[in-house]
Amino acid sequence: MAPVTNGRLLFTEIPTGYPEPGKTTIYDTLQTIDLENVPLNGGVLIKTLVLSSDPYLRGRMRDAKIKTYSVAFQLGEPIDNHGVGVVLRSEDPTFKPGDHVFSWKLPFQHYSVFNGQDLGALRVLPNEEKLPWSTYIGVCGMPGKTAYMGWTEYAHPKKGEVAFVTSGSGPVGGTVIQLAKADGLKVIASAGSDKKVAYLRELGADVAFNYKTVPVSKVLQNEGPIDIYWDNVGGESFEAAIATANRRARFIECGTISEYNNETPYPVKNLKLILYKELQISGFIVTGLYAKYDEQFYKEIPKRVASGEIKYSEDFTEGLENAGQAILDVQLGKNNGKKIIRVAGE
Amino acid sequence: MAPVTNGRLLFTEIPTGYPEPGKTTIYDTLQTIDLENVPLNGGVLIKTLVLSSDPYLRGRMRDAKIKTYSVAFQLGEPIDNHGVGVVLRSEDPTFKPGDHVFSWKLPFQHYSVFNGQDLGALRVLPNEEKLPWSTYIGVCGMPGKTAYMGWTEYAHPKKGEVAFVTSGSGPVGGTVIQLAKADGLKVIASAGSDKKVAYLRELGADVAFNYKTVPVSKVLQNEGPIDIYWDNVGGESFEAAIATANRRARFIECGTISEYNNETPYPVKNLKLILYKELQISGFIVTGLYAKYDEQFYKEIPKRVASGEIKYSEDFTEGLENAGQAILDVQLGKNNGKKIIRVAGE
Repeated sequence: MAPVTNGRLLFTEIPTGYPEPGKTTIYDTLQTIDLENVPLNGGVLIKTLVLSSDPYLRGRMRDAKIKTYSVAFQLGEPIDNHGVGVVLRSEDPTFKPGDHVFSWKLPFQHYSVFNGQDLGALRVLPNEEKLPWSTYIGVCGMPGKTAYMGWTEYAHPKKGEVAFVTSGSGPVGGTVIQLAKADGLKVIASAGSDKKVAYLRELGADVAFNYKTVPVSKVLQNEGPIDIYWDNVGGESFEAAIATANRRARFIECGTISEYNNETPYPVKNLKLILYKELQISGFIVTGLYAKYDEQFYKEIPKRVASGEIKYSEDFTEGLENAGQAILDVQLGKNNGKKIIRVAGE
Repeated sequence: MAPVTNGRLLFTEIPTGYPEPGKTTIYDTLQTIDLENVPLNGGVLIKTLVLSSDPYLRGRMRDAKIKTYSVAFQLGEPIDNHGVGVVLRSEDPTFKPGDHVFSWKLPFQHYSVFNGQDLGALRVLPNEEKLPWSTYIGVCGMPGKTAYMGWTEYAHPKKGEVAFVTSGSGPVGGTVIQLAKADGLKVIASAGSDKKVAYLRELGADVAFNYKTVPVSKVLQNEGPIDIYWDNVGGESFEAAIATANRRARFIECGTISEYNNETPYPVKNLKLILYKELQISGFIVTGLYAKYDEQFYKEIPKRVASGEIKYSEDFTEGLENAGQAILDVQLGKNNGKKIIRVAGE
């Protein structure tokens, strides 16, 4: 069989504000791949099915000289992220053609070779629950892990307490809302459109509001004080949460979307209340909790999703050529639920 | 015996900036007390020996309508704080004349009656180590407890890590430096005068500097990154600590002296690093830890002080009439070591 085009989404320019499709990233079709003969070096050939667009990707679009918790994208190379693919060929007994695999560093391209020494980045998905493969990069993937592991490690919920969850319609916040309700909490949740707010109510939020039309501080004053703050936002929302926190409230710092695309951070003015209120603030990156919780996560969450106990919502972008837009949409909060880039069918 | 004057330090005006002796507080000599006949209602009569001037007192000089972690002072009434006195008369078998007692709410007056129902505010000090009574409001009192309990609960030190301790020459910071050294850490400590800096070195600090002449951020860049930040200061120092923190550093928020006398808080600009660096930030008020640690504290710390293992420094103000100045001095950082107000001899 003749070589086929291997379309790729390349990282082409470091953005200063929001990432721009066609500028920050360019969809490139110059590369070809011979699927039958490309050398595997003891590894596997993967056909990409779905890729994830997550808020944290913005942080990887930086000068590689700047070190943070995440690996910077390389200019001129395809970006990568969580994805699910299917094995086309394999030289390793762990992986068989037709196996579906999850990877936390799947390149944004149609076909990828993982050499023998890189197979640690792949995990075969048994998927006994027959869930859509896309869930393994959403509610059963990194976002779901973020919610489950962060909540389990840091929330210390007590029945009857009040939790405030930001970005509640995203895959992290949406799962947190449901975990908090399952723990018997009153849940206040925010999102950025009326449609999303309706979804927050479907998920069980007791109080749901559109932060673009109602001030966060006002809602928290009326519905708080809060005992747990799940922060996906930072900035002004963080300040409002501090102002209305109960003594010994737990703050789980999971994201700061308000600052990802903004050079000037919001100046939080009430930090002394961290002391006065004895707040416990935990910044966390989910990868640091994988070793502790991965096994129980895969044992528990896919079952709870399959049974319908944990709901989720996905928002598909069709085609890798539109992945740049899918990345921007998530930064702008234009997605409704977990943003999935569908690269190919089975 | 005729009634004697019972001098008192009254809270007379809510300050907007620093508290002013003679304005914020006034020493009043109009009240008399008949030491032999004043009714005790099942309680005790105490002669005040020493009183404590602590940074947190500024927070109590507020409108009583504003609720915080501490009780506001009442206008027209004597202020109160930690102190040690001697029992002159008693109608309760727990207390005998001549006993020395600690109280966490001893009024700033020469003589005080604690009625029977108020005796929970007094604790007989056996003082088997024959330490100066003043230590029970310093290294063996609330400041020592703050250091010991906060460190034990939140620091999670690992040998070879780096700790940064602010207000290192005060009774809290000074004790923390020694606890950190005992745990095998490299200790960076700051204070506000060259004399204090010399004292930090005596306590064992590996790096000691005067924050008024050397920028905190520069020292931390050279000597960090830091794993533990003991914050008595807040504001710019907090920001510098965030900037130079290691992954998973622990921040212990114990005081914010930079903001107590200042209406405009310093705008911390790098809060997103709480997430990126997975910082664990714990605000705490020591009273919340008393139940857990009081017993082990009194068993352990007076012995370590008596043996000379834990050093301390005290700075005396003579006379209750000078207590207003002693309060201001602590807010200005003019004390060298724990500020003690000596009200009377035995």
